[in-house]
Amino acid sequence: MTLNYHKEIMTSHPWTFFKLLWNWRASVWKAVIVELICWLIVYGIISVIYRCALAEWQMEIFENIVRYCQKRLGYIPLDLLLGFYVSMNVDRWTYRYRRIGFIDNPCLMTAEYVRGHSDVGRMFRRTIIRYAVLGQIMVFRDISLRTRRRFPTLDSIVKAGFMTEVEKKEFESYKIKCKQWICFNWAYSLVYEARKKGLIKSDLYVHQVIDDLRTFRTDLQSCNNYDWTPIPLLYNHVVCLAVHFYFLVCLIARQFIVHEGAFNPTPIDIYFPVMPMLQLFFYMSWLKIAEVMMNPYGEDDDDWETNALIDRNIHMGMAIVDAGFDRPPELRKDIFWD
Amino acid sequence: MTLNYHKEIMTSHPWTFFKLLWNWRASVWKAVIVELICWLIVYGIISVIYRCALAEWQMEIFENIVRYCQKRLGYIPLDLLLGFYVSMNVDRWTYRYRRIGFIDNPCLMTAEYVRGHSDVGRMFRRTIIRYAVLGQIMVFRDISLRTRRRFPTLDSIVKAGFMTEVEKKEFESYKIKCKQWICFNWAYSLVYEARKKGLIKSDLYVHQVIDDLRTFRTDLQSCNNYDWTPIPLLYNHVVCLAVHFYFLVCLIARQFIVHEGAFNPTPIDIYFPVMPMLQLFFYMSWLKIAEVMMNPYGEDDDDWETNALIDRNIHMGMAIVDAGFDRPPELRKDIFWD
Amino acid sequence: MTLNYHKEIMTSHPWTFFKLLWNWRASVWKAVIVELICWLIVYGIISVIYRCALAEWQMEIFENIVRYCQKRLGYIPLDLLLGFYVSMNVDRWTYRYRRIGFIDNPCLMTAEYVRGHSDVGRMFRRTIIRYAVLGQIMVFRDISLRTRRRFPTLDSIVKAGFMTEVEKKEFESYKIKCKQWICFNWAYSLVYEARKKGLIKSDLYVHQVIDDLRTFRTDLQSCNNYDWTPIPLLYNHVVCLAVHFYFLVCLIARQFIVHEGAFNPTPIDIYFPVMPMLQLFFYMSWLKIAEVMMNPYGEDDDDWETNALIDRNIHMGMAIVDAGFDRPPELRKDIFWD
Amino acid sequence: MTLNYHKEIMTSHPWTFFKLLWNWRASVWKAVIVELICWLIVYGIISVIYRCALAEWQMEIFENIVRYCQKRLGYIPLDLLLGFYVSMNVDRWTYRYRRIGFIDNPCLMTAEYVRGHSDVGRMFRRTIIRYAVLGQIMVFRDISLRTRRRFPTLDSIVKAGFMTEVEKKEFESYKIKCKQWICFNWAYSLVYEARKKGLIKSDLYVHQVIDDLRTFRTDLQSCNNYDWTPIPLLYNHVVCLAVHFYFLVCLIARQFIVHEGAFNPTPIDIYFPVMPMLQLFFYMSWLKIAEVMMNPYGEDDDDWETNALIDRNIHMGMAIVDAGFDRPPELRKDIFWD
Amino acid sequence: MTLNYHKEIMTSHPWTFFKLLWNWRASVWKAVIVELICWLIVYGIISVIYRCALAEWQMEIFENIVRYCQKRLGYIPLDLLLGFYVSMNVDRWTYRYRRIGFIDNPCLMTAEYVRGHSDVGRMFRRTIIRYAVLGQIMVFRDISLRTRRRFPTLDSIVKAGFMTEVEKKEFESYKIKCKQWICFNWAYSLVYEARKKGLIKSDLYVHQVIDDLRTFRTDLQSCNNYDWTPIPLLYNHVVCLAVHFYFLVCLIARQFIVHEGAFNPTPIDIYFPVMPMLQLFFYMSWLKIAEVMMNPYGEDDDDWETNALIDRNIHMGMAIVDAGFDRPPELRKDIFWD
Repeated sequence: MTLNYHKEIMTSHPWTFFKLLWNWRASVWKAVIVELICWLIVYGIISVIYRCALAEWQMEIFENIVRYCQKRLGYIPLDLLLGFYVSMNVDRWTYRYRRIGFIDNPCLMTAEYVRGHSDVGRMFRRTIIRYAVLGQIMVFRDISLRTRRRFPTLDSIVKAGFMTEVEKKEFESYKIKCKQWICFNWAYSLVYEARKKGLIKSDLYVHQVIDDLRTFRTDLQSCNNYDWTPIPLLYNHVVCLAVHFYFLVCLIARQFIVHEGAFNPTPIDIYFPVMPMLQLFFYMSWLKIAEVMMNPYGEDDDDWETNALIDRNIHMGMAIVDAGFDRPPELRKDIFWD
Repeated sequence: MTLNYHKEIMTSHPWTFFKLLWNWRASVWKAVIVELICWLIVYGIISVIYRCALAEWQMEIFENIVRYCQKRLGYIPLDLLLGFYVSMNVDRWTYRYRRIGFIDNPCLMTAEYVRGHSDVGRMFRRTIIRYAVLGQIMVFRDISLRTRRRFPTLDSIVKAGFMTEVEKKEFESYKIKCKQWICFNWAYSLVYEARKKGLIKSDLYVHQVIDDLRTFRTDLQSCNNYDWTPIPLLYNHVVCLAVHFYFLVCLIARQFIVHEGAFNPTPIDIYFPVMPMLQLFFYMSWLKIAEVMMNPYGEDDDDWETNALIDRNIHMGMAIVDAGFDRPPELRKDIFWD
Repeated sequence: MTLNYHKEIMTSHPWTFFKLLWNWRASVWKAVIVELICWLIVYGIISVIYRCALAEWQMEIFENIVRYCQKRLGYIPLDLLLGFYVSMNVDRWTYRYRRIGFIDNPCLMTAEYVRGHSDVGRMFRRTIIRYAVLGQIMVFRDISLRTRRRFPTLDSIVKAGFMTEVEKKEFESYKIKCKQWICFNWAYSLVYEARKKGLIKSDLYVHQVIDDLRTFRTDLQSCNNYDWTPIPLLYNHVVCLAVHFYFLVCLIARQFIVHEGAFNPTPIDIYFPVMPMLQLFFYMSWLKIAEVMMNPYGEDDDDWETNALIDRNIHMGMAIVDAGFDRPPELRKDIFWD
Repeated sequence: MTLNYHKEIMTSHPWTFFKLLWNWRASVWKAVIVELICWLIVYGIISVIYRCALAEWQMEIFENIVRYCQKRLGYIPLDLLLGFYVSMNVDRWTYRYRRIGFIDNPCLMTAEYVRGHSDVGRMFRRTIIRYAVLGQIMVFRDISLRTRRRFPTLDSIVKAGFMTEVEKKEFESYKIKCKQWICFNWAYSLVYEARKKGLIKSDLYVHQVIDDLRTFRTDLQSCNNYDWTPIPLLYNHVVCLAVHFYFLVCLIARQFIVHEGAFNPTPIDIYFPVMPMLQLFFYMSWLKIAEVMMNPYGEDDDDWETNALIDRNIHMGMAIVDAGFDRPPELRKDIFWD
Repeated sequence: MTLNYHKEIMTSHPWTFFKLLWNWRASVWKAVIVELICWLIVYGIISVIYRCALAEWQMEIFENIVRYCQKRLGYIPLDLLLGFYVSMNVDRWTYRYRRIGFIDNPCLMTAEYVRGHSDVGRMFRRTIIRYAVLGQIMVFRDISLRTRRRFPTLDSIVKAGFMTEVEKKEFESYKIKCKQWICFNWAYSLVYEARKKGLIKSDLYVHQVIDDLRTFRTDLQSCNNYDWTPIPLLYNHVVCLAVHFYFLVCLIARQFIVHEGAFNPTPIDIYFPVMPMLQLFFYMSWLKIAEVMMNPYGEDDDDWETNALIDRNIHMGMAIVDAGFDRPPELRKDIFWD
């Protein structure tokens, strides 16, 4: 479930953010704990070997290697690489979130223009919206792990009521790989049918309903297309490797030089690498931001709740086009009336 | 209340900004004063302990820790992390501000196309706009602390005149969680009704009125959706922790080394950490920018005045569709007429 | 007046930019001259005191303070803070410039669809455009210092011919604070009237004219809204203070250490702080870029010429809808005709 | 073939990215392997000459050159130049990807509004879509190496069935260089013809079909225009040369100074330049990201599969407008019906 | 002529970019050659004076000045200033390129909706497009050096056939400064006339043709407006001066210190300032990128070929609306027909 923390940061206080630190889900702690512990263990092993297992002359060599690495750590570009990379991922995340598909507009337009309190009118409105949501499910099944898990087969969709047996058969009769458009083709056809039946009073109204359904569909397709052609793998490789190689080198470079008589020893030996650990913590979690945002359809704590969205869409959709259809309160003068 | 300072910076002078420094509200002083004082107190305590309570050999250890920390402070990434983070928050702030919902366009279109000087015409126009504003209130109650405080219950809305008792009952009769769309469904229905009654002369005009109402509604929903799925918590964690850990380490690292005979002591002992304080001041307030912009619906000094906007919308709305309806001055030749 | 230098940089030569350096208006010289001189004077005073007024032991303390400050100057973040801040201001400047309101499209559409060579037709077209420009004046009076100066009262607008006495009375009869929409309401009403009178032949054409007027109005409102809620003051505070504090500290930190026998003196004493002055020059003018772009409606050399725009709009507007109305040259075969 | 790795990174784990490292195609390994090996060889040669072939005094000179270069390496700007350059290329890549041309919307609109189950109706719908895909092929032949290879001549297009012999002749009869628009002109004409034949019931529907075809065409033209005027060559020159010169200088600057009695020798001689190699690896692949994204129509591993898109478009297109035309399942009450 | 190099970088190889380095036009070599040579000459003169003309004590002073400058070079901000500045110029360049005015859409719409194979129909279509291109010429004459050179007077336009003598007289009869809109007013009027004559069958089709012409015109106006109010001169001043001052100081600061017995001399004297030259080369050409992109309407090698665009527009335009009008190939079953 997406973690919503906006309520808690309504007003900025010095302690605002600290309130957010105590939950484990979607937190920075959870994100880097594994890397942190692994790194500390390996660091510790190397440290113990250096302190206890090496002979004098081996220690000297080791210390020279430490110095060599430490001085050249800056060769690996981290800050700007991470900065621009995360920035790009935020842009892509935002673009996709804006197109995730809230069904309100198609519903409101359908309720506005497809008229009729009779069962036929109701059926038309309900089915148009159901097909739109069904289309969303079809897209989400391809890109979202959660929706795929919830609807592993067409039968599970039928069982959940989004599809009837008849529709399923019809759906399966198409001999083509990419079938997401079928539901929308059905929905569009129904709108045209409704015009022919006189439920829609004007060609212009048809256009308006179709237009909102089209926007809904195009948004979903954008999400799908983003999934079809991700950012070149190379970019991810570079950033991820840079961060990991940096801290790999750090395993050596950040060792305390404590050998007596060593040239330029660390001023104090506190055994535990506090500051390098902080560095690992912050850079690694900086990288994690990008990883979390790169594919928001997964099952990370902060990934989008596609299933909740589908439920919201079908419930709100039915409420708008059926329960809420053409029921404005009686017109009265308001209290500001002069 | 949002602080509007544009009038004072119309023209750029060397002293332009200094004029803005003397107010407390929404100022940088207010933003970081607590953190600053806390930090100085802890710094002072540590300083006093170091100077007075430690033995010679303890001082040496302490000084080595100071040196260790100081040299490794740069491990914690601050500048670029903050730069990109604030930049992202500015983008999101701007996006939402553009969609906060000024009702002018729906009003002007309603006044243009829903005709009739009779009470019926006036009622239609007034009620359509009132429903739109009511929808805005419903959305703002969910995302804005101020509006929530002003309208804690539906009764308070009825009392303020945005809703009648009848409408409230109707509103409550819906058995669904997310009810923001109801008011817009009403407004749309009224537009359709107006067309049937002949107050709107053409289907195209219906389309135009609906279109502007829809844009108004979609904008509000964007704000709402941004609230539903905020930026992953992880990002905020990382930035906030980086800044705070940095200055936590600074408490040690920025201590004056004054111990006589110490290796490499601070050239001068001025007791008060002027420069570290400036650093804290600027980085902490850099972070505060992001915090303030992250949730502009709260009660910070610079947060948006949602209540003022609602009042503006209802007053201007009523003026446009009722008082100002179809009252163009008589057509005369203008003075440029040849 | 905005300085237009595009003509001079058509083609890039090594000396291209130097041609632009010799004008004073809107130049970098003018922008920072005051700060520069003040800073140099204070720097000089401190320098003289240090060289002439201080005793030996005072000099040593002073030099230690210089060293302390110099080494810690980097604590104040400048580069990235300024970079992102200016970048944001450029974005906002661009956004607003694109919406400043060129009336060409509404005019061309009015000329296209509101027909009639008679006086009535001409009056309709002229008045619609005049009201649009009047609306622009109303908005600019609120946000632009120059337009406010030109039109301090409604009478001055009447005198300039943008409004008649009758219209002014009508305008004043509205009992509401925010009146910018009134002119557009009038313009819209006239369009509707023109349709009823048969000057516009089709409902669709009404829609088109209204649509362009609406875009014009919405653009103006965007400018207005940007003025209503500026970027949080905090951001400006932080950036401005950072730059100024930096150079305040520089007054000490950049002093030449010339005391004989001083530890680590400046290698050469050239009395005049050439390089720090350059630093002040560039950072201060970097900041000025943001200040100039933050409010482009003021009276800086580079601020927008709102008055010239209003004049252009009314003249071009009248020419398009009246002089240029429906006067296409006789249709002939062109010379490419086969 | 574009490498799609989204499925594998659905959920962020510490080992998420490492799974992606083991494939060669589109990987960072493949991107820089040549540069890396060349650089290492030259580095090795220089190293061997220095260690074995030079006399004592020559070694000293060489070491001084090494020191001279090393200290001044920072003169060449790399980080920010690369950061902004890659960021710009990502933007352009994204812009073009969004306009690559998915035919779904034109198809769905054609299926919705061009009616008729007869052969005539089917022919109209099929041919309109075929012409749109043909237009896409024409554009892609100009900008994409892959499509050019697949369709080297018009005959190959005819053979693939996208064009008939008659159409080819017609196509060739135009005496003009830029012929991409011809297919769209045909498609538009067919839509108009369909209206005249009564297959389209309303002028508004014509508008809607044309509108979607136009969007499809305009998107393709955007891609084409981007190809016509690329980013000024200068920018690419600067970035590419900066990176390559940097590592050219590194060949000298990063040599180990091992000469006995040398001033300030490298603390340890490990023969193999580990850290400089990492630097080359990361900066060079950072540059490669830009190169790969600059022209995504080529034959890199991560370039877009224009041919697959054409196939998808024609298959899905035919399925939508023909097989899926007007076949909504029979309307029934859904299971949520109360 | 714009240099198009996309064909050569289709696929990324290690040597891809090097192929592009060998042309002189629009290359980095040409861009900075003058600055580079001047700088080297002055550097050489100073170097010679220092080595040959100065006395011992003068040399010492000179060396101290060198050291003073070198240590303080970092005071001048270059990297971030240039980075953000170039980034902004790329954005503006892109924005304008997208609006440069390709006439395809207006042509295709005119060919679609303005019917008639008769001479009248043809004349209408041809003239509408000719006026649109004429409008483009009028705009380009104001902002593009190349078009201004090609069409210095109205007569030259008449001679080239874009305008007839009659139209020229009509054009000149307008007593107003800004005349670019006239041609579009003519084009719009013709569209209206065509509707009245029955060449356009529906009001909606008029709207569609006008709409595309309007987009074309608005795009051109955007380019014009960008020219009217450029980015504040101050910004250009700051960046340009920063780069030039930096290298002015470098003339001193980068001198070799070779004086025997000098404190801290350059380790090796190679006479030629290789590394500073590279620095100048890269920073100066980084700046040149911005200069080239700032005004793309000039006569730089990479500036846009406005004249070629005009020719393309008129030729393609005529071909679309006349030669290609309503000539779809006969409708046949395609080879995929089942």
